[in-house]
Amino acid sequence: MHKTIDVAALIAVDWGTSSLRGAQLDAAGRVLEEIALPRGILSVEAGGFPALFESLFGAWQRESGAPCLISGMAGSRQGWIEAPYCPCPAGFGELGRHLAWVEPGRIAIVPGLSVVEDGVPDVMRGEEVQIFGALQLAGLSDGLCVLPGTHSKWARVQDGRVIGFRSYMTGEFYALLSRHSILARTLDAEAPFDAPAFEAGVRRAQAGPSLLHLAFGTRTLALFETLPQAALASYLSGLLIGEELRAQALPAGSAQDILLIGSDTLTTRYASALALLGLRSRAFGAEASWAGLHAIAQGMKGIPT
Amino acid sequence: MHKTIDVAALIAVDWGTSSLRGAQLDAAGRVLEEIALPRGILSVEAGGFPALFESLFGAWQRESGAPCLISGMAGSRQGWIEAPYCPCPAGFGELGRHLAWVEPGRIAIVPGLSVVEDGVPDVMRGEEVQIFGALQLAGLSDGLCVLPGTHSKWARVQDGRVIGFRSYMTGEFYALLSRHSILARTLDAEAPFDAPAFEAGVRRAQAGPSLLHLAFGTRTLALFETLPQAALASYLSGLLIGEELRAQALPAGSAQDILLIGSDTLTTRYASALALLGLRSRAFGAEASWAGLHAIAQGMKGIPT
Repeated sequence: MHKTIDVAALIAVDWGTSSLRGAQLDAAGRVLEEIALPRGILSVEAGGFPALFESLFGAWQRESGAPCLISGMAGSRQGWIEAPYCPCPAGFGELGRHLAWVEPGRIAIVPGLSVVEDGVPDVMRGEEVQIFGALQLAGLSDGLCVLPGTHSKWARVQDGRVIGFRSYMTGEFYALLSRHSILARTLDAEAPFDAPAFEAGVRRAQAGPSLLHLAFGTRTLALFETLPQAALASYLSGLLIGEELRAQALPAGSAQDILLIGSDTLTTRYASALALLGLRSRAFGAEASWAGLHAIAQGMKGIPT
Repeated sequence: MHKTIDVAALIAVDWGTSSLRGAQLDAAGRVLEEIALPRGILSVEAGGFPALFESLFGAWQRESGAPCLISGMAGSRQGWIEAPYCPCPAGFGELGRHLAWVEPGRIAIVPGLSVVEDGVPDVMRGEEVQIFGALQLAGLSDGLCVLPGTHSKWARVQDGRVIGFRSYMTGEFYALLSRHSILARTLDAEAPFDAPAFEAGVRRAQAGPSLLHLAFGTRTLALFETLPQAALASYLSGLLIGEELRAQALPAGSAQDILLIGSDTLTTRYASALALLGLRSRAFGAEASWAGLHAIAQGMKGIPT
C-alpha cells in the first residue's frame, strides 16, 4: 500500500451513466488512441466492472504499464466502487488525495464534488475533471465554467479550486417537455435548428415570470400560428437555456470569457445565448477530460497509494 | 334563428379533455341531478358528439324542455364545434354574445378566453365559467382567482370582467418530474402528503434561482438522506406550487381573499401555500361551474339566437 506512482503514460477513462470514453495518453498528455462506447454504468451488470475494464483497457495497460484514472459515474453508488464526494472548495490537490483505488497503483476513481447551498446539497461526478482540464488548457486558475447537458453544471473556480456550483435539469426538462408533455403534440423535435426562434426564447426567458408559464407559450404560439411548427423546438430550447442564464444573473460585459465544456451542438447554442446577453465564451470538448485526468496524474507523482 | 330563450331550467355541462360533468338545474340554479363520467373529448370518436350527448342528456332535455350550455374543451378545435376564444377583457356579456350554437335555442357552447402578454397568447376553456360562477357565489365583481390543475390559471377580475390571466403548467410538470424524470427513481408518488416537506418546498421556491435548479435538489436531498424518501413527492409539489406563487409576486397581507377553484386536494394545498406567504383564500368546487353556466343562461334571456 506504499507504492508510489511514476506517471509516464496514463489510461484516462470518462465513465458516465450511458456512455464511456477512454484514451491512452503519453507522458505529455497527448492522445495516442481513443475509444467511445455506449457502455455507461447502467449497461454493466452487477459485478461486471472488472471483466469489462479488462476487455477494454487490459491490453493498453499491459502494453504501456500505465496506471488508469477513471472519472464520472463509475465512482457512484451504482458504479464500480463508490468514491465519496469531495466537499467544495476543492481543486486538483483534494481530488488527488481522495482517489478511490480499485487496485492500488493501477486503477483509481476520481471522486466527484459536493456543495451545500441553503441547506440543500448539489453534486457533480466527472464534470470536475473537465473543469480543471479546461482551465489547464486555457492557462487559467479562475473562471466560470458551464457544462451543458442533461443536468447542466455552472461552476465558479477561484485560485484553482471549485468554490461553488449549481446543477440545472435543463436537458432533462427539454426531453420531458418536447417528448412527453402537451407541447409534444405540436412540436417537431426533429426540425432543424431555427436561430431566430431560439433567440426569441432566450430573450423571453429573461423577463420571467416563470418557466411554468413560459413553457405553455410554446403551445399557444403554435395554436395561434404565431410561430411555425418547425420553430417550436428551437423556441423551447431557447426558453430553457435562457432560464439558466436568467437564474445565474450574469453581469453583462464581464471581462473574462465564460468557459463552455461539452459537445459542439450544445456549446454553440450556449455561446449564442450568452452573446445575446453581451457575454463572451470559449468552448472545449472531450480534450478537457483528458487534460484534467493527465493533470491529476501529474499531481499524484510520489503520492503513496 | 330569431327564437328567444326563456330560461327556466338549464342543462349545464362542463366537458373537458379527459372527463365530463353534467347537471340538471332548476330556474333558481339549484342542482336537481348530477353526473360525472370519464368521457372527455379525447374519448369521443370523430362525429360521435351528437350521439353521446343524446345518450347522456337527451332524456333530461325532453323532460324539462331546458336548453343546454356546455363549457370546456368541447368548444376546442378537437371538440364538438369550435367556439373561437373571446379576447380579454371579457365578462358574462361577452361570453353570452359569443356562444357557439350547436342547435339554435337548444345546445350552445360557451367560448373560452384569450389574452396576449408580451406578444405571446394565453388561453383558457371552461375556467372562465368557473371564475364567473365563484365570483357570483362570493357576491364579488373583483378578485384574483386561482384554478389549480394540469395547467393552472391565475385570473384577475375587475368590474365583472377578466382583465388578464396566465397559465402555469404546474400539474403537468409535477407528473412529468415525479413519473418520468431522474427524480422518479427515488421519489414515491404514492406516499401520503407530508405537510412540513411541502412547506419547505414552498419556502425554498421563493428564493429562486430557478425551478431547473431547485428540482434537482429533490434528488440530492434523497441522495444525502436529508429528506426521507416518503417526503420527496410533497417537497416537489411544494417547490412547484411555490414557484407559481413566486411568479405571481403577490403582495403579502392583501385585504381580499384569493378565490381558489378546484378539487379539495388541490385547493387545500394552495390555501396552505398562500397562508405561508401571509395570504388568505377561500375555496370553491364543482358548484362554481353550475353557478357560472346558470348566470350566463340568465343573462341570455331574450337574446336572439
